[in-house]
Amino acid sequence: MTPTAAWTELQTRLAEINTISQIASNLSWDQQVMMPTGGGADRGKQLSMLSGMSHARWNEPGLAEALDALSGNEASDLQRAAVRNTKRQHKRSTAMPKELVQAMSEARSAAFPAWAAAKESQDYPGFVPHLEKLVALTREEVAVLQEPGQDPYDVLLEPYDPGSTSASLDPMFERLGTELSSFLQAIQGKPAPGERPKGPFAIAPQQALHESLVPALGYDMERGRLDESEHPFTIGMGYGDTRITTHYYENDLLPGLGGTIHETGHGLYEQGLPKELRGTGAGQAAGMGLHESQSRFWENFIGRSRQFSEWLAPQINAHMGTSLTGPGLYAASNGVKPSLIRIFADEVTYNLHIVIRYQLERQLFSGQIEVSHLDQAWADAYEQKLGVRPAHVGEGVLQDVHWPQAYYGYFPSYTLGNLYASSLVKALEKARPQMWAEVQKGEFAGILSWLRENVHQKAHLMDAPDIVNAACGGQQDHVADFVDHIWARHGALYGVSR
Amino acid sequence: MTPTAAWTELQTRLAEINTISQIASNLSWDQQVMMPTGGGADRGKQLSMLSGMSHARWNEPGLAEALDALSGNEASDLQRAAVRNTKRQHKRSTAMPKELVQAMSEARSAAFPAWAAAKESQDYPGFVPHLEKLVALTREEVAVLQEPGQDPYDVLLEPYDPGSTSASLDPMFERLGTELSSFLQAIQGKPAPGERPKGPFAIAPQQALHESLVPALGYDMERGRLDESEHPFTIGMGYGDTRITTHYYENDLLPGLGGTIHETGHGLYEQGLPKELRGTGAGQAAGMGLHESQSRFWENFIGRSRQFSEWLAPQINAHMGTSLTGPGLYAASNGVKPSLIRIFADEVTYNLHIVIRYQLERQLFSGQIEVSHLDQAWADAYEQKLGVRPAHVGEGVLQDVHWPQAYYGYFPSYTLGNLYASSLVKALEKARPQMWAEVQKGEFAGILSWLRENVHQKAHLMDAPDIVNAACGGQQDHVADFVDHIWARHGALYGVSR
Repeated sequence: MTPTAAWTELQTRLAEINTISQIASNLSWDQQVMMPTGGGADRGKQLSMLSGMSHARWNEPGLAEALDALSGNEASDLQRAAVRNTKRQHKRSTAMPKELVQAMSEARSAAFPAWAAAKESQDYPGFVPHLEKLVALTREEVAVLQEPGQDPYDVLLEPYDPGSTSASLDPMFERLGTELSSFLQAIQGKPAPGERPKGPFAIAPQQALHESLVPALGYDMERGRLDESEHPFTIGMGYGDTRITTHYYENDLLPGLGGTIHETGHGLYEQGLPKELRGTGAGQAAGMGLHESQSRFWENFIGRSRQFSEWLAPQINAHMGTSLTGPGLYAASNGVKPSLIRIFADEVTYNLHIVIRYQLERQLFSGQIEVSHLDQAWADAYEQKLGVRPAHVGEGVLQDVHWPQAYYGYFPSYTLGNLYASSLVKALEKARPQMWAEVQKGEFAGILSWLRENVHQKAHLMDAPDIVNAACGGQQDHVADFVDHIWARHGALYGVSR
Repeated sequence: MTPTAAWTELQTRLAEINTISQIASNLSWDQQVMMPTGGGADRGKQLSMLSGMSHARWNEPGLAEALDALSGNEASDLQRAAVRNTKRQHKRSTAMPKELVQAMSEARSAAFPAWAAAKESQDYPGFVPHLEKLVALTREEVAVLQEPGQDPYDVLLEPYDPGSTSASLDPMFERLGTELSSFLQAIQGKPAPGERPKGPFAIAPQQALHESLVPALGYDMERGRLDESEHPFTIGMGYGDTRITTHYYENDLLPGLGGTIHETGHGLYEQGLPKELRGTGAGQAAGMGLHESQSRFWENFIGRSRQFSEWLAPQINAHMGTSLTGPGLYAASNGVKPSLIRIFADEVTYNLHIVIRYQLERQLFSGQIEVSHLDQAWADAYEQKLGVRPAHVGEGVLQDVHWPQAYYGYFPSYTLGNLYASSLVKALEKARPQMWAEVQKGEFAGILSWLRENVHQKAHLMDAPDIVNAACGGQQDHVADFVDHIWARHGALYGVSR
């Protein structure tokens, strides 16, 4: 096969796999947003059939042959990126013995209800056998995929954050933990800068507010939807169809707004991926960390800024009948308070939740800690880093679904997103000095346009670390950028400086 | 292959085809109800891929081998029904030359926008070449599928109404046309029995009204949804997931209510198909005519009855702030007025619209009429049967999408539904003398239970004509049953008798 023929062959096959994936995404969206409960059993069969179809296509010899023929003979950056990305996924999709895939699938299915029960009954020892099984199977998977000399944890990182390694993350997360602990010490005992608006807040006007906010940020409603679901999420199903969901709370306005702006950020990234690269192997997002940088950029860096609060407060008032001021909303959006539950954490302490999880995962997969001791290690780490200690595992090691579903290597992307976003904001402020004045007027087109050009349009032509550094004009110190932001915003609100 | 092995093989293959069909149905529902406009291009590719997958499975030799091995060796009524139904579909899915399938697909695609334009510009001659092409290709399809001695029109009927033949329909439709014309003559010049309630009507309370009405009729909302779409429809996606849609009008309450009750009738049928027969080849609906009998049963026979009006009027008033009375609603729901547009026609004249279409289709496919003369023949038939003549083809021969998309043989099912429903109501009145008293109290469980047992649970174990006659205790005269109903209801309202 000539390289040209191989490229054509590869494109045809990837386009087909991409279409199957779009179909599965639509069914999954429907399952979470629309499907009546009775549809569950058949939906399981439908998704399982699609998964089998995709698996079969990844395992067709023609795909491997096209990849081999092209590899080393690529004629462009696009081809190089597509080959690199596709090889990674091809290996994950074909190397695993069938028995191991089956065993992991069964272990996950068994663990899910056991986790829910153990979380409810605060019974860690009862869940340990499941977790040990999942970790053991994950180690087997790592052994299959591991390259000579590669750190096992890096094998886990790759599907979520290709291009990141534990060698780069270890020092970043260590330093970030120290810096954020210093900041927490500096504000200790200081009063919160503001109070959150008090409910109840009717759902219908909240919906109207959110529905006006999403397109105002630049989201194209002709190529997307906003709906409600139990857990907010974003799903991209091709250039013309990216859907976001949110969740409205009667007793609090801000979590719903934060969630909607967060998902809008994810959605803007998906909508901004270049049309012509879709399904080529290089047209998808460059990983979860970069994806999260886009959601956090809008949710935290823009959405919790003083200028955005000035713009948003009168709109909230118009819809909700409240009497918020810009400064009041700004202060209410930026309280910092160590707490036990990650998903409710503030912009600062959130990252300590992630540092703790990352460091425990590292110890777990380097054999420094046993599954059976994870609950104690967790509690100790929270006490040391956040000054709070869970009373039970339901608010401790069993709070998240990630470990009980063997998503090891996933957590770092949340904080990577914050770190990347902080560097992108710094670069944007240089490129577009008027940006904060624009935010205050509700003009987001210039900001979005910079993100489109420097991040979204790069798709997966490079790995995320390279995309962010290129966007910022060279190697950045993301931890320093993020910590600067925390001191500048939250330090000022709490009246402390470095 | 032993018959037992062949049955197992057939079941496995049909279950897989059924799952593909469920997936396609979900994508199609999404396309009509949820999808942003931008999703259209990819959605086309997704549906085309699924259609290809289904086609490939129908054409696998293993399916034909299992069918052959089982045929004549069936061990039960279920197996006999599954083989008969599956053979019909297998033939339609495999016998057609690829070139003909392709040519028809292209002709349909080309005809659709041409039809919309010709309808808009009232230009029949401009559309004739498309229609001639579609009819010619349909004739080629018929030639492929036709059994020796079979009437070509019966080949067209089969995918919509298996078990019906032109030999049975010709006299029924002829007699029905005559009987309804007599009825129209009898009420000519009489004033309408009532006036429709005047709008505008806000959409939100209409929605609340409809959302309470649908489950009140017995629709299981744990296995279904009600949404809004441009054109109301029902889609079954397995035992646990049947979705209906409706359309709300600001200026008129009744069309929306009629539409919702109609789709609820379709939905009740889909929800009532037996769980254990799904995907066996005999667990689906027994054709469009029987499907339509279920929607018309609820929309017209129950929904426009005096007793239902008594029950419904106070509920409309509670939601909409109107002051309807039962008799007022009953009269308003049952006006009879010859008109040009089928989809807006009343319960009586609707069937004359169908008789006209059926008789023209018969003449077209027996070669008694040319495509180029269809517009004049249409106008003449309307003048003769309904006393109205279209001023142009937009309100005449080009009003419906069916012929411009080559759905020949489809129209009769609408009237078959009315005819079947009238016989079912008669049988129900005998089996359940209290039924109308129940309707007046809003108690529909007993009625639904009778339909479940006598119609829904039969799925496609028999063809529709046999199901209806068995439900009614023997061969029925559907035309007489329907005409009796018209005289009893509308004759009384107009103060005329036979």
